[in-house]
Amino acid sequence: MQQLSKPRTPAREAKIRRVLSLRRRDLTVVLSNIHDPHNVSAIYRSCDAFGVAKVHLYYTDTAFPTLGAKSSASARKWVETARHTTAESLFGALKEEGIRALATSCSPAAHPLGEYDLTRPTAFILGNEHRGVDPALVPLVDGEVYIPMYGMIQSFNVSVAAAILLAEASRQRQAAGLYDKPAWAEEELEERVARWLRK
Amino acid sequence: MQQLSKPRTPAREAKIRRVLSLRRRDLTVVLSNIHDPHNVSAIYRSCDAFGVAKVHLYYTDTAFPTLGAKSSASARKWVETARHTTAESLFGALKEEGIRALATSCSPAAHPLGEYDLTRPTAFILGNEHRGVDPALVPLVDGEVYIPMYGMIQSFNVSVAAAILLAEASRQRQAAGLYDKPAWAEEELEERVARWLRK
Repeated sequence: MQQLSKPRTPAREAKIRRVLSLRRRDLTVVLSNIHDPHNVSAIYRSCDAFGVAKVHLYYTDTAFPTLGAKSSASARKWVETARHTTAESLFGALKEEGIRALATSCSPAAHPLGEYDLTRPTAFILGNEHRGVDPALVPLVDGEVYIPMYGMIQSFNVSVAAAILLAEASRQRQAAGLYDKPAWAEEELEERVARWLRK
Repeated sequence: MQQLSKPRTPAREAKIRRVLSLRRRDLTVVLSNIHDPHNVSAIYRSCDAFGVAKVHLYYTDTAFPTLGAKSSASARKWVETARHTTAESLFGALKEEGIRALATSCSPAAHPLGEYDLTRPTAFILGNEHRGVDPALVPLVDGEVYIPMYGMIQSFNVSVAAAILLAEASRQRQAAGLYDKPAWAEEELEERVARWLRK
């Protein structure tokens, strides 16, 4: 059945090449000590859907998440992961790729999502379910962002927030034609196609 | 503690009046036999957040959901519910309010979310986790809609899809100034404020 579920067909190779061509190096999320594995899995699924090439895990007071083999968790197979236990490591990695960091926040310094040009290289930092984004990160970010809400309940589940943030970035990028060109040169893209075909 | 958690303070009354002023009668979702109570709760939470006044439940082969008193379920207190067991009842209610229905779908007839003017009165029909929208509804809808995806996994969790659809409708409506005017005349609004204060 393993063979049947991932045959080396031309259709599968074409799909893998298409998906890799749509992967973005300059759109990512940082999971700041997110505890619930269902939330982590759901965020990976949204990352896969909107073409995030790599997720950054920043875990300083919570164990790195281990994800089971449930259906939505399988998105993790298709999204790279970088692990960080210090702010230096995290921001070093983002700066190396020229990506600004926007922390989700409901502080007075936060701006609504619609004010940001998300065609620019962007990492959304998503916080722990109870404590939010690690306060140690906040002085280091390039901005704080919130999703405008109009209801009685003043927060979103973190995986829902991630989906809304990435969907808006994806909408802006689609409108700007930013999915049209692969993020990697042809040789590197083909190397990735070969690696994914072996998964 | 009951008293403490919902005091009749001027601040609470002001919040309730503000939220009710932002409630929209012409933005809604239809839950077509959605099974998982967590998904139902999460959808109510998004409806509360984006100002949906009333949710339509269309249950023909699944029991109507009963929601517990967990935190996100409490959004249900603040969003009205209409129950339907026939397509006639559902579409009668939507037509009475002049709301077009868009079924979430991955059929060739579906258009991407970004092609729809969501400032128009709109109901998104969300389908069962396994079977999608009841096929009996599809010939009756005004359009089919999908969220553009770029990944290996070809579907969203239904509550994530609901959040993305409502967030986009909310974004378009905010940009068009459609949250500026209450959906009800002053007398009806005040009647609702009084009712919510008793909750």
